[in-house]
Amino acid sequence: MKNKFVYSFGGGKADGNEAMKNLLGGKGANLAEMAGHKDLKLPVPPGFTITTEVCTYYYKNKKTYPKNLKEEATKALKQIEKLMGREFGDPDNPLLVSVRSGARKSMPGMMDTVLNIGLNEKTIPGLIKQSGGDTRFAYDAYRRLIMMYSDVVMEKSAGIEPKDEESGIRKQLEKIMKQVKAKKGCSNDTDLTADDLKKLCSLFKSRVKEVLKKEFPDDHNQQLWGGIGAVFASWNGKRAISYRRIENIPDDWGTAVNVQTMVFGNMSDDSATGVAFTRNPGNGENGFYGEYLINAQGEDVVAGTRTPSPLNKYSKSGHNKDLITLEKQMPKIYKELYGYRGSLEKHYRDMQDIEFTIEKDRLFMLQCRVGKRNGPAAVQMAMDMLKEKLITKEEAIMRVSPSQLDELLHPIINPKEEASHKPLAKGLPAGPGGASGQVVFSAADAVEWAKQGKKVILIREETNPEDVEGMRASQAILTARGGMTSHAALVARGWGKCCIVGCGAMHVDYDKKEFVVSDKVIKEGAWITLNGTKGIAYEGQLPMMDATEENKQLNNFLKLCDSVKRLGIRTNADTPEDAKKARQFGAEGIGLFRTEHMFYGKTSEEPLFRLRKMIVSKSEDERRKALDELFPYVKKDIKSTLAAMDGLPVVIRLIDPPLHEFVPRDPGKLKQLAKDLNISLGELSKRADALHESNPMMGHRGVRLGITYPEISSMQIRAIFEAAAELIKEGKNPYPEIMVPVVSDVKELDNQFAITKDVYRKTLHKHGLKKIKHMFGTMIEIPRASFVADKLSRVAEFYSYGTNDMTQMGFGFSRDDIGGFLPEYLEKGILPEDPFQSIDQEGIGELIKIGIERGRKTRKNLEIGICGEHGGEPRSVEFCHKVNMDYVSCSPYRVPIARLAAAQAAIKNKKGKNK
Amino acid sequence: MKNKFVYSFGGGKADGNEAMKNLLGGKGANLAEMAGHKDLKLPVPPGFTITTEVCTYYYKNKKTYPKNLKEEATKALKQIEKLMGREFGDPDNPLLVSVRSGARKSMPGMMDTVLNIGLNEKTIPGLIKQSGGDTRFAYDAYRRLIMMYSDVVMEKSAGIEPKDEESGIRKQLEKIMKQVKAKKGCSNDTDLTADDLKKLCSLFKSRVKEVLKKEFPDDHNQQLWGGIGAVFASWNGKRAISYRRIENIPDDWGTAVNVQTMVFGNMSDDSATGVAFTRNPGNGENGFYGEYLINAQGEDVVAGTRTPSPLNKYSKSGHNKDLITLEKQMPKIYKELYGYRGSLEKHYRDMQDIEFTIEKDRLFMLQCRVGKRNGPAAVQMAMDMLKEKLITKEEAIMRVSPSQLDELLHPIINPKEEASHKPLAKGLPAGPGGASGQVVFSAADAVEWAKQGKKVILIREETNPEDVEGMRASQAILTARGGMTSHAALVARGWGKCCIVGCGAMHVDYDKKEFVVSDKVIKEGAWITLNGTKGIAYEGQLPMMDATEENKQLNNFLKLCDSVKRLGIRTNADTPEDAKKARQFGAEGIGLFRTEHMFYGKTSEEPLFRLRKMIVSKSEDERRKALDELFPYVKKDIKSTLAAMDGLPVVIRLIDPPLHEFVPRDPGKLKQLAKDLNISLGELSKRADALHESNPMMGHRGVRLGITYPEISSMQIRAIFEAAAELIKEGKNPYPEIMVPVVSDVKELDNQFAITKDVYRKTLHKHGLKKIKHMFGTMIEIPRASFVADKLSRVAEFYSYGTNDMTQMGFGFSRDDIGGFLPEYLEKGILPEDPFQSIDQEGIGELIKIGIERGRKTRKNLEIGICGEHGGEPRSVEFCHKVNMDYVSCSPYRVPIARLAAAQAAIKNKKGKNK
Repeated sequence: MKNKFVYSFGGGKADGNEAMKNLLGGKGANLAEMAGHKDLKLPVPPGFTITTEVCTYYYKNKKTYPKNLKEEATKALKQIEKLMGREFGDPDNPLLVSVRSGARKSMPGMMDTVLNIGLNEKTIPGLIKQSGGDTRFAYDAYRRLIMMYSDVVMEKSAGIEPKDEESGIRKQLEKIMKQVKAKKGCSNDTDLTADDLKKLCSLFKSRVKEVLKKEFPDDHNQQLWGGIGAVFASWNGKRAISYRRIENIPDDWGTAVNVQTMVFGNMSDDSATGVAFTRNPGNGENGFYGEYLINAQGEDVVAGTRTPSPLNKYSKSGHNKDLITLEKQMPKIYKELYGYRGSLEKHYRDMQDIEFTIEKDRLFMLQCRVGKRNGPAAVQMAMDMLKEKLITKEEAIMRVSPSQLDELLHPIINPKEEASHKPLAKGLPAGPGGASGQVVFSAADAVEWAKQGKKVILIREETNPEDVEGMRASQAILTARGGMTSHAALVARGWGKCCIVGCGAMHVDYDKKEFVVSDKVIKEGAWITLNGTKGIAYEGQLPMMDATEENKQLNNFLKLCDSVKRLGIRTNADTPEDAKKARQFGAEGIGLFRTEHMFYGKTSEEPLFRLRKMIVSKSEDERRKALDELFPYVKKDIKSTLAAMDGLPVVIRLIDPPLHEFVPRDPGKLKQLAKDLNISLGELSKRADALHESNPMMGHRGVRLGITYPEISSMQIRAIFEAAAELIKEGKNPYPEIMVPVVSDVKELDNQFAITKDVYRKTLHKHGLKKIKHMFGTMIEIPRASFVADKLSRVAEFYSYGTNDMTQMGFGFSRDDIGGFLPEYLEKGILPEDPFQSIDQEGIGELIKIGIERGRKTRKNLEIGICGEHGGEPRSVEFCHKVNMDYVSCSPYRVPIARLAAAQAAIKNKKGKNK
Repeated sequence: MKNKFVYSFGGGKADGNEAMKNLLGGKGANLAEMAGHKDLKLPVPPGFTITTEVCTYYYKNKKTYPKNLKEEATKALKQIEKLMGREFGDPDNPLLVSVRSGARKSMPGMMDTVLNIGLNEKTIPGLIKQSGGDTRFAYDAYRRLIMMYSDVVMEKSAGIEPKDEESGIRKQLEKIMKQVKAKKGCSNDTDLTADDLKKLCSLFKSRVKEVLKKEFPDDHNQQLWGGIGAVFASWNGKRAISYRRIENIPDDWGTAVNVQTMVFGNMSDDSATGVAFTRNPGNGENGFYGEYLINAQGEDVVAGTRTPSPLNKYSKSGHNKDLITLEKQMPKIYKELYGYRGSLEKHYRDMQDIEFTIEKDRLFMLQCRVGKRNGPAAVQMAMDMLKEKLITKEEAIMRVSPSQLDELLHPIINPKEEASHKPLAKGLPAGPGGASGQVVFSAADAVEWAKQGKKVILIREETNPEDVEGMRASQAILTARGGMTSHAALVARGWGKCCIVGCGAMHVDYDKKEFVVSDKVIKEGAWITLNGTKGIAYEGQLPMMDATEENKQLNNFLKLCDSVKRLGIRTNADTPEDAKKARQFGAEGIGLFRTEHMFYGKTSEEPLFRLRKMIVSKSEDERRKALDELFPYVKKDIKSTLAAMDGLPVVIRLIDPPLHEFVPRDPGKLKQLAKDLNISLGELSKRADALHESNPMMGHRGVRLGITYPEISSMQIRAIFEAAAELIKEGKNPYPEIMVPVVSDVKELDNQFAITKDVYRKTLHKHGLKKIKHMFGTMIEIPRASFVADKLSRVAEFYSYGTNDMTQMGFGFSRDDIGGFLPEYLEKGILPEDPFQSIDQEGIGELIKIGIERGRKTRKNLEIGICGEHGGEPRSVEFCHKVNMDYVSCSPYRVPIARLAAAQAAIKNKKGKNK
């Protein structure tokens, strides 16, 4: 423990600095930095900080203070008085102070604050004098003090627990105030006169005495130490404790207490208060941007009852363009402020959000912190500051968060409009961006309406592969069930389409063609708007905006990212169109091409029909015939994707889902299929039923199909090699990687590898080629596969982690069914987050690490990537970087985000690859 | 490499012994042991063994032999001639030899053998003389030599590949023989006269020359070395190589070659051949048991064309009681043989299976090996031999295999009857023993027919909880779908009931009340018989037998097991009846009591109705009320089970399955339920539908229910503590262990532990008790749980491995759906066995080990057990022993097997606990 308990700041000096957060708390350290750092020396209202060590001492020593504390504080107070030319308790020219908490880590709103300390019957005249005779101002300050102090210090910190909220002192005083206003027939506080307020103060004081059995203290020193004690006491308040539990903040960190001169922007007409940003947070331009209000307090700027004036010409906009600027009204002050803007940016090397107050023509800087900004602004500022050499390349990359980048990639609901609308329902944010449309309740309707030029939003309980065409035709998708990796979510994200899933409050009635939320009934054709980034649905049609607005910097920024990242970025793409798009977004290959996805939502039903024919085949012979019919479609699909990715690797996964997924569920469609296949409906149903499974996710799928029906694998592998061979002959450079899914044992791979080798030899022979560049590998998605990874890599040349399934099996969470408990798990804090969104590094992560270590033990140059949906999620990308994967793969629209995340991961983990 | 290539045996001496298996092969080492060991010195036909090193040399040196080999072999042959008083190649009194393979590890039928070597035109007269003038005998031996030698040596070993089987030399010679018989109008070989055979031999020789372009060798030495070469060549025959691949036998082990004197039991009327067991293999009695045939070869005994005679009075039975015994017919020889019986048992310290031949009144011992025996015999012999001090306690325990013990625990189909029946269909052996009954196709019919006193077998596609009552009423269950841990299998095994599941060839038609296998239609009421131990169904009613037949030794044997085992044995029991039965079988507690199982198949529908009411509750309030109604039933069930296990621990699992499992599927029942609940069918269907899941195994179940509906956990825990409290007051000593299922994170446990603590305190208070002995713990069945086991054991005092689910999630194998691919996986050797039967030690085993290590890191005295179905499977029990679990738990009927397996595991792993 230090021998110094009090750190002063103000007057161009400070005992502390920013590095002393542990001792002074975040707020105290920042104030010291602003006030004392040689490059800043800002006019911070002078004050002092009582260290966190005092708090620790306080709790270790039966709520007493170290011996020297009062002495040090008194000395520090003297210094403030000197700087301000006022004296604490001086009836003529009183100094007023605030007492605030300040922990190492911000705990917003969890601890207490008291303002206007030092105001009492004796000093009120002095304050009136300071304000140029504004009695109302002084009594208003006084009644605020009484309300705050009696509540925080006299009641809460004294451990008095009112029997209910209504009997607490704050409520009681509020009630009195209401009554006074009612008597006067007015509704606003501002309608109360100086006299009213004066009377109110004495009513307040007698009620305080009545309720709390104590006189409201009129002594300024008593007020001060009461406030300090209350702040320390609030460290162990219920709210603070439970907040610390959640945020994992140790109890013995303690809080500091900041005692600081009160300054008033509402003291007179040469007073003012304002906020400013050193650059434009809306678009990132290098302009000084802010607003202010004459004779007002900070909260007035926020409240919106008066329209704040623009700081300068640059800050003018439609609604305030006729108001006078600070630049014009107080040119000297503006110039001073503008100067600080420069020094702040130079010092903090980032855009700052500033709060300032002008008290009687004197500028005080109350706070500065890194300013929030939207996506386009973040990119613009990062690139500008790099150009200005204010920051390094690495810093520029770290300045843009992945979610900011995401903003640039999708149209969004105009945020201002959105703020004024009440949500209709909430669900999981499955596909980003915003969209409006008229609701329809079937895929067929969606297609039909869209053909008529209507914008539709498809509403479903949950979607399945039969809905795909309707999903594509819709502006957005909204489902009542399913999680972040449900069918709807996966498909929507793959297309970069707006989508909300698992909207449990919604009851869909297909018959009536409507859905109900609480008492609201939304009928077919009604307009709704979705915010897929946040998972909120609104009634009506809200206006959209393009968040990019010709952001030229985006590409430059992403190239910057590429220059530092180690991870390769591939994409999950099932069509040549997706492949092309992803390549534009910077994908360096395809990490997952799902052979079966060609059967979803094609305009031509031909391939799906052939597939179904194959599926319901009764014998191997029938199946072989159907497969032969299917072959040209599969080959064509693969060929065009390989061509689109010419020169880049394309991981092609052999058939994965259980076959029954492709059999129609709709009775009408089933009937048609039976007719097309020329078998009876009964026979078809029988064959389809035989495919039914209790838990299809763990059933007859993936390599299990390849082993029981080797002719299916054989057909697919033949399609791959034939497509590649044809492209080679056309002068192209195809590079397929053949991937076997759902593998749990090396013998499964041996089996499929034998088929691959055989088909490869035959294809070379047929086309007279010497070689087709390719790899043979496996997905690692079954937990057991990680344990036997050393054996798998005897055969597999590459691994691709299927973290969706790995998470499903590792947790025993069916992603289609987690809706029943996951929301509660998140709410109760049992899980920190949805493990299907961000890799669970503790459990699933270890499984992945084991697999990587063992896999590379057998095959050093084993290529390892991830193709689960996690591949586009920034924390998961960082994890992939840390465990030394070679690449991540994600949907086309997430490729830019993955590039950024990979770059940030490389920067964060520069020292020591395996941290 | 040794300098000695040839090891002689015979005449009471041998160069080698049993320990030299690697050098002499299994057969060679055994012959040396029998012939040469001081305690045995049996009259083995003399011979010599060429070492496996010669085989290795042969393949390393372009199929040549080491220099000294011929010299050593010639010397050894001389020794044989001396012992036999015959000479190899001597026309007057020729020595004949056999040439046989003999690898380290037996490779039955994979390599070649040549008999009667040394027989040729010159030596035939000598053999006729030896046989006392039996020309027919000599020419029969010669034609056999020609057939065998031309095939094995001249064709196969020479690398000649006939274009098809028909053109191979063996087939050609067989055809000639057929033609000769046809000409004579006879059908048996024995109908051919000496002249016929003589002619046949010359026909054979000219056909050999014609086909193989070589003279059949008439030189005895050429024959011998041809035979030896052929045996070495057969080591690299196709069949041998592929057998080695499967059995993991290294190629460089090589085979030895055994050259041994031919002796003929069919040479004359003072010749004979026979087999004997040193004790009765059918019941274990200490009696010399065997049979023999005068003037016959070994194959005649096996073939069954002649009825063999009993060895002695003890060996007499119904069918041979009138035949003369060896004891009477050849008393001297019998006495000699009886003497060998004693020395063999003394030497090998186990029951031996002996083959002997008598050639012209001279006894030769051809082979002895440990004799096979059935279950009752195994137990009897082990206990007898222990009493006789022939073997140690540990050896006695190792002498009985778990499957032999299993034989003692269930009635079985009379094996003789079974052998003469053709299987109707095959499936998975889900419940052991045998049973006959008339087939019915619904649970209701099963109950109805059983009430009428009929024996029924329930046929279902697959079973579900609604079928339980019908399953109980049936003799056995036969299903078309499902794996070894499907519902039917689990329930049947729990009851020790005969059951076959996954009988894929069976097509069930509920409407017609019949099932079809291939073309056979089995209609309702038809009799069938199941062998649940092997998974075979038969048409008709086969007779049963009780395998125990008052086996008094069983209990003694199991007590012996208990004296060496380390693992505790508990049982999975859901009813007081099961608990009592298991206690009789030796269970030391309950490892798994499933709270929900009280709702399956009760006579009273009351509790199930209350449960259903709870499940379809719309609000927490409704649910609480339903739970209150349910409480007394649950408490009663738990109380009576705790009472039955008084003093022993009872692990009680909180509710595990997804709730929808309890909602009836049958429309009629659903309608009735709606009526009972007084809600509309539509409303009920809606609520039931809301519970539907895509993959219920990974859905809203186990602790996930406990967290989303804490009131369910609370009710169950209250029932446990109240039941225990009441028992304590009744002077009993209950010991519940509360187990939370489906846990994947410690926060889930924290949540449920808080409920437990709360309920515990309240119960103590209510009953005025200071303590209720109990534990709080978790199942480890989710893969992730193993990784976070160090955290889980912060809260959990015990772990119980749910290896069924662990296997499901670890492999991604839905146990209800593996029928689609597992059979093929086993057939193709992709998996060595069904991982739901025996723990997959490579993958799932490692997951278990990780959990145990981490769990005990945090809590040293953590109690760890297993309650999956693996707990009664011997290899899995050994695994549990090796990884230092505290106990295994299995169904009551498997408790004895687990006791044996645990004892055997302790013995096998005596040195070093963690091997």
